[in-house]
Amino acid sequence: MTPVVRRLAVVGLGLLGGSVALAARARGAAAEVVGVARREETAREARERGVVDAAGLEPGEGVSGAELVVLATPVGAMPEALRKVAPHLAEGAVVTDVGSVKAALAEALPALLPAGRHYVGAHPMAGGHATGLAHARPELFEGAPCAVTPPPGADEAAVRRVERFFAALGARPLRRAPAVHDREVGWVSHLPHAVAFAFARALEGAPESAGALRGPGFRDFTRIAASDPALWGELLAANRGALAEPLRAVAARLGELAEAVAAGDAPALERFIASARESLARGAEDARSGGGSPEIPAASEAAPKERIEHS
Amino acid sequence: MTPVVRRLAVVGLGLLGGSVALAARARGAAAEVVGVARREETAREARERGVVDAAGLEPGEGVSGAELVVLATPVGAMPEALRKVAPHLAEGAVVTDVGSVKAALAEALPALLPAGRHYVGAHPMAGGHATGLAHARPELFEGAPCAVTPPPGADEAAVRRVERFFAALGARPLRRAPAVHDREVGWVSHLPHAVAFAFARALEGAPESAGALRGPGFRDFTRIAASDPALWGELLAANRGALAEPLRAVAARLGELAEAVAAGDAPALERFIASARESLARGAEDARSGGGSPEIPAASEAAPKERIEHS
Repeated sequence: MTPVVRRLAVVGLGLLGGSVALAARARGAAAEVVGVARREETAREARERGVVDAAGLEPGEGVSGAELVVLATPVGAMPEALRKVAPHLAEGAVVTDVGSVKAALAEALPALLPAGRHYVGAHPMAGGHATGLAHARPELFEGAPCAVTPPPGADEAAVRRVERFFAALGARPLRRAPAVHDREVGWVSHLPHAVAFAFARALEGAPESAGALRGPGFRDFTRIAASDPALWGELLAANRGALAEPLRAVAARLGELAEAVAAGDAPALERFIASARESLARGAEDARSGGGSPEIPAASEAAPKERIEHS
Repeated sequence: MTPVVRRLAVVGLGLLGGSVALAARARGAAAEVVGVARREETAREARERGVVDAAGLEPGEGVSGAELVVLATPVGAMPEALRKVAPHLAEGAVVTDVGSVKAALAEALPALLPAGRHYVGAHPMAGGHATGLAHARPELFEGAPCAVTPPPGADEAAVRRVERFFAALGARPLRRAPAVHDREVGWVSHLPHAVAFAFARALEGAPESAGALRGPGFRDFTRIAASDPALWGELLAANRGALAEPLRAVAARLGELAEAVAAGDAPALERFIASARESLARGAEDARSGGGSPEIPAASEAAPKERIEHS
């Protein structure tokens, strides 16, 4: 394929940053990929594994001449990372990121940019509890929804470049206003993680011998509970505004269910579970149809939909 | 392999009964497999797909001459199913089942048997939300823990026959007293299902457009929420005694987490999530070590551990 960008810089080479670099190289989304790491060990690993064409510790060097810069540090470290690279950004460069909360970034990051440089947030719904460059893989974004979150007044060409880039990595870009993204992701990503964490903590009260009876359903259900504590502690705190309502809703439904269980009311439980199934199925239809763009009109030039071959 | 039983009868040909029959044939655990279905359509499908050597609607005919009878109907239908087959059971026949609650069955079923016939419960920790014979498969039990739950005073040879049979299907038999089983499974199977149902109901309050942002973590977490409503309504009601404590524990932990989120207390959240991870990892060690037999001494003749080849 024709590369979406000539030079791509990825700042932060963990699971997501490493996978962006690998996918961009494997799919030819960028002609050249440069990585910026915090530790020399990571930069060396990235070079040796061929995750990037070049990698170093110097942000200014890494981003110089890049048309697209992807910030893939923890969310809290992004403003500082952008401050370091900002003076070195080429005219017309677009900065995006892969963080899982967007409103605060949409407010903080654009102000850090010199004139003629643009910020458009993104959040690919992919990842895993196994973090770090060692687990990065080029197919991580294949088929994954990817929220693209332009701040108010964003440059339309910059938005489209970010959409095209993530589409070229195999993801499905979906435009969202930053605050809308945070609310939606509160429900479908932060909330299930929170509930899984609470469930795993509750297990501290289970008899020890119960562990041996865990089956495949248990393992699926608890996979996300093994997520990185520092990363997720930060995310849940950062999205507290959007999480209050979903957390209250789960607590209320759990209380309702507990009452029906205590009463041994099998028909009420059956109705409850049937509605749970319907609720899940409804959302899955939205996922298949692409979900539209609830608050921002879609770009007239849609992101390319064709299947992109690996190089 | 040498068959564990010459003639096996499976009463109820859904996902679990069908898979028991398929696995027994594929692995040579029984020389002959006969199925009993409720509907002629199911019996015909079982014959045509080669799930069984023979299948019909007549329980008496099905179980006559069988050394092992597996009840695979819904739990609530088991006493009635056993009442129908009891008069036709051969001298020395062993009856087991695959239901997910055991104390009530351990109390009700033995009393329905004529002298010289034995009941030993079982619960393979395998299954899935896609129910029915169409989804049955011979490898369903491979590597799955399988609780074997002898009622008080059970015949030791009968217990060992049931253990050997499930081991021959590829499962890992683990002895549990029926009430201990119910308590443990309350924590590691019924509780995660209940929480997943409550989460799915809570989603009714999510914005419609959130569905499009569901990622792989969401799908893993909610897979068990699509379970069969009638089956699971019955199970949660049947195990209400063992579920009260786990449900309270989850609600308490969820409340704790919600407080830390509301306060935006990232360090407290990080500690909470780190403990959640540890709690999960501890139980996984128990699962790997086999978990022992908390209240019933293990049989001196252990279930065969060698890998059994497909025939």
